[in-house]
Amino acid sequence: MNIDFNKSNGLIPAIAQDAKTNKVLMLAYVNKEAFEYTIKTGKATYWSRSRNKLWCKGEESGNYQEIVDILTDCDNDTIIYKVNQKGLGAACHEGYESCFFKHLVNNKWEYNDEPKKFEPDQVYKK
Amino acid sequence: MNIDFNKSNGLIPAIAQDAKTNKVLMLAYVNKEAFEYTIKTGKATYWSRSRNKLWCKGEESGNYQEIVDILTDCDNDTIIYKVNQKGLGAACHEGYESCFFKHLVNNKWEYNDEPKKFEPDQVYKK
Repeated sequence: MNIDFNKSNGLIPAIAQDAKTNKVLMLAYVNKEAFEYTIKTGKATYWSRSRNKLWCKGEESGNYQEIVDILTDCDNDTIIYKVNQKGLGAACHEGYESCFFKHLVNNKWEYNDEPKKFEPDQVYKK
Repeated sequence: MNIDFNKSNGLIPAIAQDAKTNKVLMLAYVNKEAFEYTIKTGKATYWSRSRNKLWCKGEESGNYQEIVDILTDCDNDTIIYKVNQKGLGAACHEGYESCFFKHLVNNKWEYNDEPKKFEPDQVYKK
């Protein structure tokens, strides 16, 4: 019963979910290397498709994700990282706790009411 | 601010999440057609990659998913369907509420302790 990394050209979706609240924080992709690195380090690690490299979330920002549990689905081609979001408590580079900060209202995307945990301009100003 | 269906060859991941408990029920894929059908009908609809056709979840089993809210992420390339799971209360064809019924224990996948909502042999026997 192993993860099926072959089905999707080596990459499968990984959902990061807050271990306490079950809030979905983000979705990114993992390959075998990222998955094994996550298990070894206890820190949620992905494969960056844009930078084409291993991406240990928070390695630069400090907003890393401590692994509490890892789940897989019936087809073994998607995983969930149950995590404690560390650092400033935000998974999203736009400063929100969750990347899913917009929802559909009358066929238009509107911002949820959640406050930002940080201002990107101040955190990423260098 | 529209969904970016082009980035991934027309298909983006859709996470179905229980609207009340925030439990992640499943992950499948949607294209523009499935997304628009979902909005029109209020029932979570996906694009079946294996059958290469529109898949209104529950159209055969009755276990459909009533849409409560739809979220998208910062990149507009992943969505969350917040749903009420109808029918037998199970999203997974194996009879579990969630497709994510296995988790990693000492490097091995083990079943969670959740009971099945139905027995697939009995439901799909025809």
